[in-house]
Amino acid sequence: MKIARFSHDGAINYGIVDGDSLVVLDGDPMYTGFNPTGERVSRDSATLLAPVIPRSKVVAVGKNYLDHAQEMGGNAPEEPLLFLKPNTSVIGPGDRIILPDLSDQVEHEGELAVIIGAIARNVEADDAASVIFGYTAANDVTARDLQRADGQWTRGKGFDTFCPLGPVVETEFTPTSGTIQTRVNGEVRQQAPLSNMIHSVASIIAYASAVFTLLPGDVILTGTPAGVGPLLSGDVVDVEIDGIGTLSNPVV
Amino acid sequence: MKIARFSHDGAINYGIVDGDSLVVLDGDPMYTGFNPTGERVSRDSATLLAPVIPRSKVVAVGKNYLDHAQEMGGNAPEEPLLFLKPNTSVIGPGDRIILPDLSDQVEHEGELAVIIGAIARNVEADDAASVIFGYTAANDVTARDLQRADGQWTRGKGFDTFCPLGPVVETEFTPTSGTIQTRVNGEVRQQAPLSNMIHSVASIIAYASAVFTLLPGDVILTGTPAGVGPLLSGDVVDVEIDGIGTLSNPVV
Repeated sequence: MKIARFSHDGAINYGIVDGDSLVVLDGDPMYTGFNPTGERVSRDSATLLAPVIPRSKVVAVGKNYLDHAQEMGGNAPEEPLLFLKPNTSVIGPGDRIILPDLSDQVEHEGELAVIIGAIARNVEADDAASVIFGYTAANDVTARDLQRADGQWTRGKGFDTFCPLGPVVETEFTPTSGTIQTRVNGEVRQQAPLSNMIHSVASIIAYASAVFTLLPGDVILTGTPAGVGPLLSGDVVDVEIDGIGTLSNPVV
Repeated sequence: MKIARFSHDGAINYGIVDGDSLVVLDGDPMYTGFNPTGERVSRDSATLLAPVIPRSKVVAVGKNYLDHAQEMGGNAPEEPLLFLKPNTSVIGPGDRIILPDLSDQVEHEGELAVIIGAIARNVEADDAASVIFGYTAANDVTARDLQRADGQWTRGKGFDTFCPLGPVVETEFTPTSGTIQTRVNGEVRQQAPLSNMIHSVASIIAYASAVFTLLPGDVILTGTPAGVGPLLSGDVVDVEIDGIGTLSNPVV
């Protein structure tokens, strides 16, 4: 089931994607379940928004594809390398990625994002599925020059607009099958099977939830494959995941 | 003016500290102003809580006192070194700091915390005071072994209970005067004038708000002076700041 968060006629709602229309839901399905209001909205007349705004954390995993770790000049760490992006970096499909004056090298990192749907603390990998609400596509936009200069990745990955999420949340998704592809102006820059992840979604949830309690609405970005490269003003960057859809954002 | 967030008779409220009593306020003064309900509660009968739960970010600054940067084996960076702690790490005065099984070296870092009270983006240092709600004491509890092993500080500084805040927010405070002192079981471990900060509160706000929008309730930890050291089960750690008060937490 694909869930969109959208604005239509000045109101923001959640809806189930049903072909060309959205079945409007009562409230946020993460908390209130999937209760249709009876209203339908045509998809064309709605503006899709970031499907979730994390109230607590965007947790991200660095170097989770061997080929990307190598292109960064290193190896993949034995354990998931965790970092945080602030919720103020989240934007939705179609929203503009704004290049900051402070950086000369902003790059795309297409990623699979996991949306947490329950309070999760010390979750075993075998139980991880029970705390997952669904999956969406993400772009872990990175000011590579600042990331390298600072050592800590907070600033390089934390600018406003540096965490596009969307277009929808797929609640039935197998994170070990399918492909992720990132395109800039239609040209393929990154492409990999999701099965190339070193640390699985389940093991990342186990690892992260042993450190901090994950809350409903928290997002986990699962790392990017090789092929990261520059974003320039006027570009359009797409992150497409089989079975979820395409997250597309202009760059200004 | 000192503002407490407290529980009393099962209700959570904000109040102005007035000697031995709390003048109960209507709503959260950050949003609704300082409107007394007419009720008073004796301070002894109330349990003080973390004076703020950040909805978005706890931003922290590394190596902002030269003597601490040196004890960590380095120099102070020319620009503020930013990192994030998750809001799930926040606890209040008197709450227990829980030592995680994953670490053998948990340490205290007493710090001055700034509470942001307005939406702040690209704020000039000269205007920083206009976005500050007040100040409190903080303990940037750190699993030093994990901080060193990971490179990124997210895990080492992100555990649940690793961000005690309190005991109250002082809305009238000059961050360049006064002293910060951290004690373990009454023994002084860290002591420094706040004027020893390399990057001032105003310059940190300017620097951080050029990266990400700061939201009301966001907290900025301004760095710790030399003298960090271990916390062991059974310890009580105090962070005292002249003019704010003492944040005291047991360690288990």
